Amino acid sequence: MITPVIYTKIPPSDPALVAQAAKIGVADLHEALGAVTGRMLLMGTRLRPLDPSKRIAGPAVTAFNWPGDNLMMHQALYLAQAGQVLVMSNGGGVQGALWGELAAIHARDKGVAGLIAEGAVRDCDALLAMGFPVWSTAIHASHPDKRGAGAVNVPIVIDGAIVNPGDIIVADGDGVLVIPPEHLAHAVKGALERGKKEEEIKRKLASGASLFELMNLREAVAATGAEIRDTTWQQDRAK
Amino acid sequence: MITPVIYTKIPPSDPALVAQAAKIGVADLHEALGAVTGRMLLMGTRLRPLDPSKRIAGPAVTAFNWPGDNLMMHQALYLAQAGQVLVMSNGGGVQGALWGELAAIHARDKGVAGLIAEGAVRDCDALLAMGFPVWSTAIHASHPDKRGAGAVNVPIVIDGAIVNPGDIIVADGDGVLVIPPEHLAHAVKGALERGKKEEEIKRKLASGASLFELMNLREAVAATGAEIRDTTWQQDRAK
Amino acid sequence: MITPVIYTKIPPSDPALVAQAAKIGVADLHEALGAVTGRMLLMGTRLRPLDPSKRIAGPAVTAFNWPGDNLMMHQALYLAQAGQVLVMSNGGGVQGALWGELAAIHARDKGVAGLIAEGAVRDCDALLAMGFPVWSTAIHASHPDKRGAGAVNVPIVIDGAIVNPGDIIVADGDGVLVIPPEHLAHAVKGALERGKKEEEIKRKLASGASLFELMNLREAVAATGAEIRDTTWQQDRAK
Amino acid sequence: MITPVIYTKIPPSDPALVAQAAKIGVADLHEALGAVTGRMLLMGTRLRPLDPSKRIAGPAVTAFNWPGDNLMMHQALYLAQAGQVLVMSNGGGVQGALWGELAAIHARDKGVAGLIAEGAVRDCDALLAMGFPVWSTAIHASHPDKRGAGAVNVPIVIDGAIVNPGDIIVADGDGVLVIPPEHLAHAVKGALERGKKEEEIKRKLASGASLFELMNLREAVAATGAEIRDTTWQQDRAK
Amino acid sequence: MITPVIYTKIPPSDPALVAQAAKIGVADLHEALGAVTGRMLLMGTRLRPLDPSKRIAGPAVTAFNWPGDNLMMHQALYLAQAGQVLVMSNGGGVQGALWGELAAIHARDKGVAGLIAEGAVRDCDALLAMGFPVWSTAIHASHPDKRGAGAVNVPIVIDGAIVNPGDIIVADGDGVLVIPPEHLAHAVKGALERGKKEEEIKRKLASGASLFELMNLREAVAATGAEIRDTTWQQDRAK
Amino acid sequence: MITPVIYTKIPPSDPALVAQAAKIGVADLHEALGAVTGRMLLMGTRLRPLDPSKRIAGPAVTAFNWPGDNLMMHQALYLAQAGQVLVMSNGGGVQGALWGELAAIHARDKGVAGLIAEGAVRDCDALLAMGFPVWSTAIHASHPDKRGAGAVNVPIVIDGAIVNPGDIIVADGDGVLVIPPEHLAHAVKGALERGKKEEEIKRKLASGASLFELMNLREAVAATGAEIRDTTWQQDRAK
Repeated sequence: MITPVIYTKIPPSDPALVAQAAKIGVADLHEALGAVTGRMLLMGTRLRPLDPSKRIAGPAVTAFNWPGDNLMMHQALYLAQAGQVLVMSNGGGVQGALWGELAAIHARDKGVAGLIAEGAVRDCDALLAMGFPVWSTAIHASHPDKRGAGAVNVPIVIDGAIVNPGDIIVADGDGVLVIPPEHLAHAVKGALERGKKEEEIKRKLASGASLFELMNLREAVAATGAEIRDTTWQQDRAK
Repeated sequence: MITPVIYTKIPPSDPALVAQAAKIGVADLHEALGAVTGRMLLMGTRLRPLDPSKRIAGPAVTAFNWPGDNLMMHQALYLAQAGQVLVMSNGGGVQGALWGELAAIHARDKGVAGLIAEGAVRDCDALLAMGFPVWSTAIHASHPDKRGAGAVNVPIVIDGAIVNPGDIIVADGDGVLVIPPEHLAHAVKGALERGKKEEEIKRKLASGASLFELMNLREAVAATGAEIRDTTWQQDRAK
Repeated sequence: MITPVIYTKIPPSDPALVAQAAKIGVADLHEALGAVTGRMLLMGTRLRPLDPSKRIAGPAVTAFNWPGDNLMMHQALYLAQAGQVLVMSNGGGVQGALWGELAAIHARDKGVAGLIAEGAVRDCDALLAMGFPVWSTAIHASHPDKRGAGAVNVPIVIDGAIVNPGDIIVADGDGVLVIPPEHLAHAVKGALERGKKEEEIKRKLASGASLFELMNLREAVAATGAEIRDTTWQQDRAK
Repeated sequence: MITPVIYTKIPPSDPALVAQAAKIGVADLHEALGAVTGRMLLMGTRLRPLDPSKRIAGPAVTAFNWPGDNLMMHQALYLAQAGQVLVMSNGGGVQGALWGELAAIHARDKGVAGLIAEGAVRDCDALLAMGFPVWSTAIHASHPDKRGAGAVNVPIVIDGAIVNPGDIIVADGDGVLVIPPEHLAHAVKGALERGKKEEEIKRKLASGASLFELMNLREAVAATGAEIRDTTWQQDRAK
Repeated sequence: MITPVIYTKIPPSDPALVAQAAKIGVADLHEALGAVTGRMLLMGTRLRPLDPSKRIAGPAVTAFNWPGDNLMMHQALYLAQAGQVLVMSNGGGVQGALWGELAAIHARDKGVAGLIAEGAVRDCDALLAMGFPVWSTAIHASHPDKRGAGAVNVPIVIDGAIVNPGDIIVADGDGVLVIPPEHLAHAVKGALERGKKEEEIKRKLASGASLFELMNLREAVAATGAEIRDTTWQQDRAK
Repeated sequence: MITPVIYTKIPPSDPALVAQAAKIGVADLHEALGAVTGRMLLMGTRLRPLDPSKRIAGPAVTAFNWPGDNLMMHQALYLAQAGQVLVMSNGGGVQGALWGELAAIHARDKGVAGLIAEGAVRDCDALLAMGFPVWSTAIHASHPDKRGAGAVNVPIVIDGAIVNPGDIIVADGDGVLVIPPEHLAHAVKGALERGKKEEEIKRKLASGASLFELMNLREAVAATGAEIRDTTWQQDRAK
């Protein structure tokens, strides 16, 4: 048997950069990572926010829990520090809520930035009332055991994306993105530049420009080989 | 290879009727089409509103996009006019958001009525803040290419329903309905009549009548052959 | 053919206990039932609230409807009394909304506590506006027939849980729980005790205690055999 | 906490009738129960046979297992007798295979008729090689604990259908049906009659008759109000 | 209400071309239609073959059935002629098997080529034994009514693709493709050319050539901008 | 933008151990890794074998492909050597088959052990006929582009499990397991020991022993606190 390990530490990250990332949001940072890397680092659509207006960023404290059990969540919450994001998996399955009100109160008091869970959360009324940010793959009230083996601060998978401990998690109404610390400065810089270009486009749109022309898409369309017909499909077919 | 086509026009429709349809909503118009036709024209439950309080109606400008790409969305947005509804598919899959903030700003400024997407949207915070109506099968931030072949203003499928260009789209918190223009007057007239009957029922309910009796359902129940027993299942079984 | 039966009565329950259950909510009552019984009585995650802030409790009036039909819902609504919860199934499938505005108006006027539906509901704008509590597995506008055979006040399955007529249904933002009447007093008592313990924990958390220590989890973690390493996974692997 | 119970006995059933049911198969017995009762007793489509050519019938020995655990399966297997069918649930989730080679060897040696599992099975190569009949909602190799609480020979839900201990399970390539013992004679008799009618229809079909006419469906079609047009849809629309 | 219509005829097609299409199969014909048109005409992955070794082609006789009902299937089967393919939908939902043994016997005797069903089939043992080709989205034994309204030989949607009556259906172990008759000659010709090229590639592969080089993909890879490193990821990261 | 990388090499592994792993199979190796590590290394149930009787093992050559594209598959196939397993992802979505007949012929000729794909495969008839082992999340015939960016021999996620290049993939009818090379000897040794114990149990079962007693489960059941009643549930409830 390979003994599972609880690592008590995660690699450091730059709080100023993390704070910038939180303001920028998922879509722009994803774009700045490039489409291949960005795609590999974006979680899937099974993960949904409890409150889609929340946006957070912070280094990941990870935990892999036994099915139906959240003991390793508690271990990770114990280790987590202000500004960090708890990232949990139970390997799939909705049984045994990974998170509820008491954990959220303690996390909020410690300054934990939020929770990302492959698994269920409960006490949703309380979580919404206290404003604790949660993204999970399920809402289910079922009893979690507190005796299951697991691992803390090891790499885990959340809805299709690898999270290494210390990776920067950015989450908002569009989903959840994982940024390895070594890519964070690059991503923030790229996203800010992208933001400026988007502001420029917004100004031009406000002056009445066409998005299609601003983006020079006429040639892209021509390159696809599509035929353009100045009629309706219905008239064309009736010929 | 069959060359795909971009049709620049869609058949005309009657703006006054369309405006009435928007007020009536999906459920009543669906009923007025008759159950067979209405069922064939109703989209499925994978499609959900970003904001369920929105309700729109308008003729469809359609686009079929390459997987992971939204170039044809841009072509369709360029062609779309005030009051029209953009109806997009990428043939399934969440990769490559079909829609985001810049497209929504431009669409709003042009007076486009809303977006229906078999595929993902992103920048949800901004879309909600600007109040642009969106129904989609997914929310995902992933990068869309802008080079993929496709077709515009041809028939497409959105979650189980055929949309021909120029078909009237009606969408609200209950889902999305497609009404061919030749059926619109009929549907609106039928739905208004149905609405009057429902108002009459509401008045009678308010006076204390029973819905079961107002709808004369006692005979319908008898016709099913069910046996009625004035006891509980538990008492019956204990005999 | 086994003739299906409409039972007009359900076993009695204690309104005071039911009112207490409504205040307590799903998660705590589920816990008080014990993990095995509680798990068997908790519905699954396909069932979602229309408005997650609602919370209800009441004895179940059940109906099994024909696919695409809601005649038995109408029969059950006719039989339902103030404080009861309508619990409906059509055996799966979204076609034929089980519930809509007129039924909700009548149910509200009769004092019906809410609706739990394995199947679709429609007229969601109106349902939300009138505040009628609904949990369903789908939202779909499709036409329901009113001629289908079925049964009323017999045991049915809703998303994985058995509901016997007269069972107490408790529903909130976390999901839906079924409590057989003979277990209700026990569940309420246990949940209140659990609530007190949670209040005690909240007080201690507010004084700066650690949840991990309050719950004595260090030994539980040790018992899993996990190795604890005071380093990061990254440093460990680089050795 | 409600103490879960292990019942060591199930109600008796008639082996001769059960043997007849196994020969008849799911579809005909389902029909003989009547459409309402038959629908409530038919499991859903998440359940699939490992080998669709198998067909079994026998009284149900039921077990509700802890998520990720199969201790109660072992308890039930210990209690099961020749001709009985093991019916297992873990409340959903694929983690912790409920069944594998050793259990199947022992079950086969005891004469157990087969396994129905809401949950996963493993060692599929061996199960197929030894020909042990299995219907399950998943195939997954994951480790099952053997310490979880649960209950044996109590009512459980398998993919939408209630199974009471002692209910007769019939399973084949079309799915799984539950027949309460008090309905078995009725179901077998009805199915045999139905089988005779089908043989008669097959003879007439073999002589060149039309199924549509044999079943007198022309009037049923007329009663739907459909219009019949002796042309193609394409020609009609082109008018 | 829009009266639904039963069209008794479908447009003609060329049997020789259809026979060629059956030999070629889905993947090559899909490619020959071009990627945009081919994608719009390919059904989705919910549709699976009962026996993946079957391959068929033929013009579509379509039917839209009421949920839980197969009356329109019977009407369509009555109208179907040798070589045609029955294409059925009930608008989703597994209740009410669309197809079973008697229909298959009659269809086989009439020379019907096969069945494509958005919905369930039953009597799978018999269907497999008689070798009747079936692709469906579900296997379920549930009772079908024979009184529901519907339409025959009108356009319908099957798992994401539009089928117009008379469209050529091609189905094999890879799925189901729809070819409008006006595209059939083009598709067959293109697929045969493609087949010849593939034979050429197979010959070269047999002589030891590399597929990567035969397809000239080195430049395509270079054009993506990927960096090529002659080391392992592990060694690179350890730097 | 983070430039994606194509690594041309993967870490070495021990062919003798790999050959042993292939003989042992997924379930036993999973158990030998311990339940926590084993669970993290087991892929999910969306992945199914084309032919469940195949069993393979080999070091992973990984590729992350653009949605709808398989250029990186071709690059990886070019780099793959005899005995290796191709492990592919397109980040989800069925569009653009990752694998087909030509690739399989070339892979077979090179001695590639098999394919694991998060995405679709096509030409299934040919793949089955040539006996090339495939596990995939979908079967779909759709056209793959050959121009998409991606990465080769980097860590990827396949249905919930992380695959690092060079990890040993073991796949059979029960699913797919990932074993890091440093754990392989341990896993093989543990699985062989486990196999011996299972042989011992099989011998005892053959002599008439009870599995429940061989595994000493009576105490485990007692420890759950379940009450044992020597009656039926039905008799107990009737009291």
